[in-house]
Amino acid sequence: MRILIIGAGGVGSAAARIAVRREFFETLVIADYDPARPSALVDELGDGRLSAAQVDASSADSVAALVREHGSTHVLNAVDPRFVMPIFTGCFDAGAVYLDMAMSLSTPHPDHPHEQTGVKLGDEQFARAEDWAAAGRLALVGIGVEPGLSDVFARYAEDELFDEIDELGVRDGANLVVAGYDFAPSFSIWTTIEECLNPPVVYEEGRGWYTTPPFSEPEVFDFPDGIGPVECVNVEHEEVLLMPRWTKAKRVTFKYGLGDEFIDVLKVLHKLGLDKTSPVRVKGVEVSPRDVVAAVLPDPATLGDRMTGKTCAGVWVRGTGKDGAPRSTYLYHVADNEQTMSEYGSQAVVWQTAINPVIALELLSRGEWGGTGVLGPEAFDARPFLDLLAAPAPAGYGSPWGIEEKPIG
Amino acid sequence: MRILIIGAGGVGSAAARIAVRREFFETLVIADYDPARPSALVDELGDGRLSAAQVDASSADSVAALVREHGSTHVLNAVDPRFVMPIFTGCFDAGAVYLDMAMSLSTPHPDHPHEQTGVKLGDEQFARAEDWAAAGRLALVGIGVEPGLSDVFARYAEDELFDEIDELGVRDGANLVVAGYDFAPSFSIWTTIEECLNPPVVYEEGRGWYTTPPFSEPEVFDFPDGIGPVECVNVEHEEVLLMPRWTKAKRVTFKYGLGDEFIDVLKVLHKLGLDKTSPVRVKGVEVSPRDVVAAVLPDPATLGDRMTGKTCAGVWVRGTGKDGAPRSTYLYHVADNEQTMSEYGSQAVVWQTAINPVIALELLSRGEWGGTGVLGPEAFDARPFLDLLAAPAPAGYGSPWGIEEKPIG
Repeated sequence: MRILIIGAGGVGSAAARIAVRREFFETLVIADYDPARPSALVDELGDGRLSAAQVDASSADSVAALVREHGSTHVLNAVDPRFVMPIFTGCFDAGAVYLDMAMSLSTPHPDHPHEQTGVKLGDEQFARAEDWAAAGRLALVGIGVEPGLSDVFARYAEDELFDEIDELGVRDGANLVVAGYDFAPSFSIWTTIEECLNPPVVYEEGRGWYTTPPFSEPEVFDFPDGIGPVECVNVEHEEVLLMPRWTKAKRVTFKYGLGDEFIDVLKVLHKLGLDKTSPVRVKGVEVSPRDVVAAVLPDPATLGDRMTGKTCAGVWVRGTGKDGAPRSTYLYHVADNEQTMSEYGSQAVVWQTAINPVIALELLSRGEWGGTGVLGPEAFDARPFLDLLAAPAPAGYGSPWGIEEKPIG
Repeated sequence: MRILIIGAGGVGSAAARIAVRREFFETLVIADYDPARPSALVDELGDGRLSAAQVDASSADSVAALVREHGSTHVLNAVDPRFVMPIFTGCFDAGAVYLDMAMSLSTPHPDHPHEQTGVKLGDEQFARAEDWAAAGRLALVGIGVEPGLSDVFARYAEDELFDEIDELGVRDGANLVVAGYDFAPSFSIWTTIEECLNPPVVYEEGRGWYTTPPFSEPEVFDFPDGIGPVECVNVEHEEVLLMPRWTKAKRVTFKYGLGDEFIDVLKVLHKLGLDKTSPVRVKGVEVSPRDVVAAVLPDPATLGDRMTGKTCAGVWVRGTGKDGAPRSTYLYHVADNEQTMSEYGSQAVVWQTAINPVIALELLSRGEWGGTGVLGPEAFDARPFLDLLAAPAPAGYGSPWGIEEKPIG
């Protein structure tokens, strides 16, 4: 396997740091628009299989040329979702397996944005699914942690724990705290605003996909491993688009544990129009208000050392168990920032995203996962993935996942 | 009386619109840094006593020269409080009576900003009080609505309603709504941030002036005339510095009826650092975050036509009445935006500020008010002011004030 990672930012770098501990690949090229970033990473990691390259991720031709130049067999897209389509297309053109951790972007319904879907997350990619299948090529989409590991959990729940699933409810929460700041998001505020202010999407059997106003259906979810109760709200996320394609769940939701304080901040930014990306004129200069919000906050990429706490990703599954009785179970994975920083030099949220595509690549290299078309993680057998994640090194990745039974009803 | 108004913004223009209906003055010059603004106003009002001029309010010499050029006897400062000291000094130098509606600015205590005062509002002006008294000159400071009418109410309560005053609690609230906007402050967000995030000041007999953290002592105050209950918090304001100098109140507070929503917005802006005035670098340009906040919101000066509702200013007095029994009384004045817009073309908050210095000028011209030194409104007899405010035109200004007894205890 000859891997190409596009993007040497937080997640791309963490994927490289995780991959170098494994034997399954021959070469790994890390490419970025700024070639200094992957070069520094390659120098730091000191693994002869690694090399750095330059790429323009906005150009399918640039991506295809790089794939051909390095004979890459598998490409991991680790850049901003705005670049999904050119990378996806470049991989198709050059005949490489494509993996990403976020899907092509949505556009709200022009008339009823809080009731009906417009262009959904991933629609542009699924529109090309027949081409990929016909060409015998594979795009494994949404294989980070959320989407990604959450989708693997959904497959596992359907195959091994439940006879019938009433709801697959992805629930993501954390108790991360950044020392020294009144308010310091542990992830990009720019992206968080984008995710949280887009109309959330929900799936229901018979009704299909529909949308709601932002921050709908607030709920306090009690997260495991000492994280505790966190206020969660509906957010637009890929799982809601992926899970109904390969599972028989009657309802699929994604709720993000933003917490009261963060939800309030986002609502205020939206109310004032400070979430807008179009420029406003301020005393002779033009700036995007959202860029100003990002500029006044600390850069989350630099906060790993000051951060403490854990982040949890998982799926709350409700339905009928294999024994025919009602069952309510949370399948989850927790990353502790102290541990990911000391072991990998990566912040917990970033590390938890990056480990999953590396495991998927290893399963593809072993032939335990395989297929053609545009497929989500729930299209594959979950067991080998979860075993490889949890098994102690050197056999596995040494990162256990958990199951917690929740009260019924 | 030969009046000079410095500043042809909202309040200065409203003062001119109110004054032209009165007979008590000979000439009225309206000056602004931008001479087009007072010229347009003078053209519009069509009163032969009026003329327009240019002035640099940041220069005491420019102010003094203008006073001498026009032989002005009384100067009303209607610009931003940053220009208090040069206008105040220019008036002293040129021998004119000085009036303002906001006093020289404060500086927080360098080490204990939320416990002790640093430089207080008005300190710079009161430091010159002996010079003014010795020269036989008068500076009547804080004679808008708040400070201003509120201070007149305090004097009235002490003279005519109470034997002993436990607390003078200024309370300001409104139910103004701007049609067509999710969030549209009815006054400058820049100034509101400044006022509300400065440490609030409180006066207590024996302890003197001290400060608290912003938004302290939240309280729901029930405003009269259909405005109803509004969440109020301590805010730094001139009354707290003025009233203890001329009344015997044991405690003086100022609470602003910002309402839950506005308080939340201000807290979020502060938490994120969007209240800061120092520039930040955003994609190659430098901007002040607070200027960006002001730029994304509608300009309140342009919203008078879209605004409905009332604004109320007053003092809640608690203590022992003239009959020796406990008494709790709110003395107040309400302005209805619909009325101020239709009668004067001025937004309610601006109009309610501007009417008071015009009444004070009329009392000074009649000799009913007079004195030397740097004096607040509570240094003068309240009755003629309140009578002139309430009496129907043409004798008075036709704007009644009210008294409401509140439950004891």
